[in-house]
Amino acid sequence: MTTLRDIKCVSCGATYPVGKFVYKCPQCNGILEIRYDYEAIKKTDFLERMQDYGTIRNIWDFQELLPVDHARNIVSLEEGNTPILEYADFVQDDSKPSLFIKDESRNPTGSFKDRPLSVAISKVKEDGSQAIITSTHGNAGVAMAAYAAKARLDSYIIVPDDTEVDKVVMMQAFGSKVFQIEGDISDAYNFSLLISDELGLVNLATTFLSPYTTEGDKTIAFEVYKQFQGNPPEWMVFPIGAGPLLVGCYKGFKELMDLGLLNRMPKLVAVQSEKCAPIAKAYEQGLDEVAEWREEGETIAVGIHEPLRGYPEDGTITLQRIKESGGIALTVSDNEIVQAMFDLARKEAIFPEPTGAVGFAGAMKLYRQNQFKAEDRVLVLISGSGYKESGGYKKYLKDPVKIERSLAAFKTHFGGESDE
Amino acid sequence: MTTLRDIKCVSCGATYPVGKFVYKCPQCNGILEIRYDYEAIKKTDFLERMQDYGTIRNIWDFQELLPVDHARNIVSLEEGNTPILEYADFVQDDSKPSLFIKDESRNPTGSFKDRPLSVAISKVKEDGSQAIITSTHGNAGVAMAAYAAKARLDSYIIVPDDTEVDKVVMMQAFGSKVFQIEGDISDAYNFSLLISDELGLVNLATTFLSPYTTEGDKTIAFEVYKQFQGNPPEWMVFPIGAGPLLVGCYKGFKELMDLGLLNRMPKLVAVQSEKCAPIAKAYEQGLDEVAEWREEGETIAVGIHEPLRGYPEDGTITLQRIKESGGIALTVSDNEIVQAMFDLARKEAIFPEPTGAVGFAGAMKLYRQNQFKAEDRVLVLISGSGYKESGGYKKYLKDPVKIERSLAAFKTHFGGESDE
Repeated sequence: MTTLRDIKCVSCGATYPVGKFVYKCPQCNGILEIRYDYEAIKKTDFLERMQDYGTIRNIWDFQELLPVDHARNIVSLEEGNTPILEYADFVQDDSKPSLFIKDESRNPTGSFKDRPLSVAISKVKEDGSQAIITSTHGNAGVAMAAYAAKARLDSYIIVPDDTEVDKVVMMQAFGSKVFQIEGDISDAYNFSLLISDELGLVNLATTFLSPYTTEGDKTIAFEVYKQFQGNPPEWMVFPIGAGPLLVGCYKGFKELMDLGLLNRMPKLVAVQSEKCAPIAKAYEQGLDEVAEWREEGETIAVGIHEPLRGYPEDGTITLQRIKESGGIALTVSDNEIVQAMFDLARKEAIFPEPTGAVGFAGAMKLYRQNQFKAEDRVLVLISGSGYKESGGYKKYLKDPVKIERSLAAFKTHFGGESDE
Repeated sequence: MTTLRDIKCVSCGATYPVGKFVYKCPQCNGILEIRYDYEAIKKTDFLERMQDYGTIRNIWDFQELLPVDHARNIVSLEEGNTPILEYADFVQDDSKPSLFIKDESRNPTGSFKDRPLSVAISKVKEDGSQAIITSTHGNAGVAMAAYAAKARLDSYIIVPDDTEVDKVVMMQAFGSKVFQIEGDISDAYNFSLLISDELGLVNLATTFLSPYTTEGDKTIAFEVYKQFQGNPPEWMVFPIGAGPLLVGCYKGFKELMDLGLLNRMPKLVAVQSEKCAPIAKAYEQGLDEVAEWREEGETIAVGIHEPLRGYPEDGTITLQRIKESGGIALTVSDNEIVQAMFDLARKEAIFPEPTGAVGFAGAMKLYRQNQFKAEDRVLVLISGSGYKESGGYKKYLKDPVKIERSLAAFKTHFGGESDE
């Protein structure tokens, strides 16, 4: 039985029948959203399974709300079901909010991108397509390379020249063909569009290009619903570039409301690097539309270095969702990001890459600004693992001590500070 | 209730009461093994829980058979419960054995070392000790650094100078103090012993120095028992250096036999790099004792580059266990290792580091040598993830293609081979 209803443009409201892979609205170039037959889903055991809070196997537990009809087309590496941890430093102080972490670095390729790629590549398989392309800074590329390998698809990846070497090597190890271009992620994205248009490759960019990838992102909302026993936290904090992760979670919570499982959603908070913050800037200036980011500047949060050049409207939808949820957008500095990363590693043994720690840096900033009430529950999303690259944060650490093998040499360094 | 009985030397048979952290036998320097009160365990619900094959949460499901008395002392990052996957290329051919993979790269810090470190650091916490040391090539150090962070212990790590830079940086990020020495892993190990003897730090080396780390390794056997519905595979293949992982699994299966849950164990196969293979060499020569490895030579399998210099008897116990199980020891070349790694990545989206793929390389070699029967089930252990380092295998891949952003430029590279 299919639970898919239609595909609707969030800008002009045009609807389209469900079919093969689609991108943006043919009429207005707006973002498309997949809609399901929620009344039919209510008649299945889906609500009952959602209210059995104890078990999540992977994101395909939610197949009724994912755009793949046949289980045989599912391409899964056991993504999802990532743990929720409570930040110990806040636990024993009643004046502080409860601070929780959802650790997406525990996904198979080390980032939340396994969710959108599992869904999008399953859709590609269901369509019978064979060749795919994406543009990426790293995590989405590694995820696409892995799922393409599992599905035995031909995969092509366009990366900007500031992409971490380690991640490029990993994409290649999975068998993807990687092309490096001069320019930034916007240039890579626009170039990938040219290729997919001309050569007919399916484009799996994980921004807002197609509706399938955000469908994967939304599974985080479903897991949060279950992991918080049907009562999600008051706040949820995300590192964002263009924002499909936040927008996907908004859609997920909205669907749970449509199904009668929820009557409110968390306030969704977007955190950007101050070096590239088109959405946070629009929010701070009280604007309704996001503009392209024109300032130059490198940030340690490479994965969210997203100027939206050529597609600022992708940021506008994110800004809308933040506001509709009652949330906030803010920026953090590279130093705050690195501090957040080391705090997570040294206090909780959670190991994000710098980009992955941006949400935590933002939550700590909001805490210092007294934005949270003591009774609030704040859930921070850690988006990706620090294991896939060490280049970015290495400069913040001392070199290891080189010593001769004598007790006297060791004793001169024993005790004292860590290697920071 | 404690289920611990005593500690016994596997060489001289001397027994000692259970107490604070111990190392090797005070009388003969033999390896110590922890023994439990198996009759008392039979009277608990342990057997029933083992036979409920459906559920494993983490290694602490097996607490009755782990050397920590109080649950409050457990230091866990949700290690264990790693997936079993079937190698698709062998599935549809009845003339081939069934080939399964247990993917230890899915542990929290990306290797099986999370098991011994979770157990050893929980023991350190139960003892009330505060400072720890280890010697490592990488994975054990990253695991120790993470668990030490979680337990808020002071941790010191000795690494040989050929240790991957990325992994050293990760140990530091978790707050460990890292010392780099000239020499190999044997030198690092012997130096760490000097320091722990003189300064009273607890030494958590994951070879055979203390009985606690192999207790963590053995939890793999318990999981295999459950994941194979009480009927473990005929063969189990491991990448090994000194061999505590194989010896730990032997002990785990033996305990299940002592508890009446099993009446046989898998044949345990040890795979070493041909560049450093003291145990495989002794096996091939029909010897009963392992000698130190004296030949120089680098291998891509850095994590098992273990010459056993100063402690060849650690290899002898591994050799004994291989033989007692009816297993085999063999070597593989660097090229076979790299091929195994890329096969796993490109066919199954499993991503080991080169060392992690050594067992798979060995299994494929044994398959080509017709060592397996068509009806055999062969389980290969993937020991660690390729995400924590790319230095070793990078040279086997082409550089990514640098192109200008034109369709014509892309088309000249479209199709054809992957970047190998």
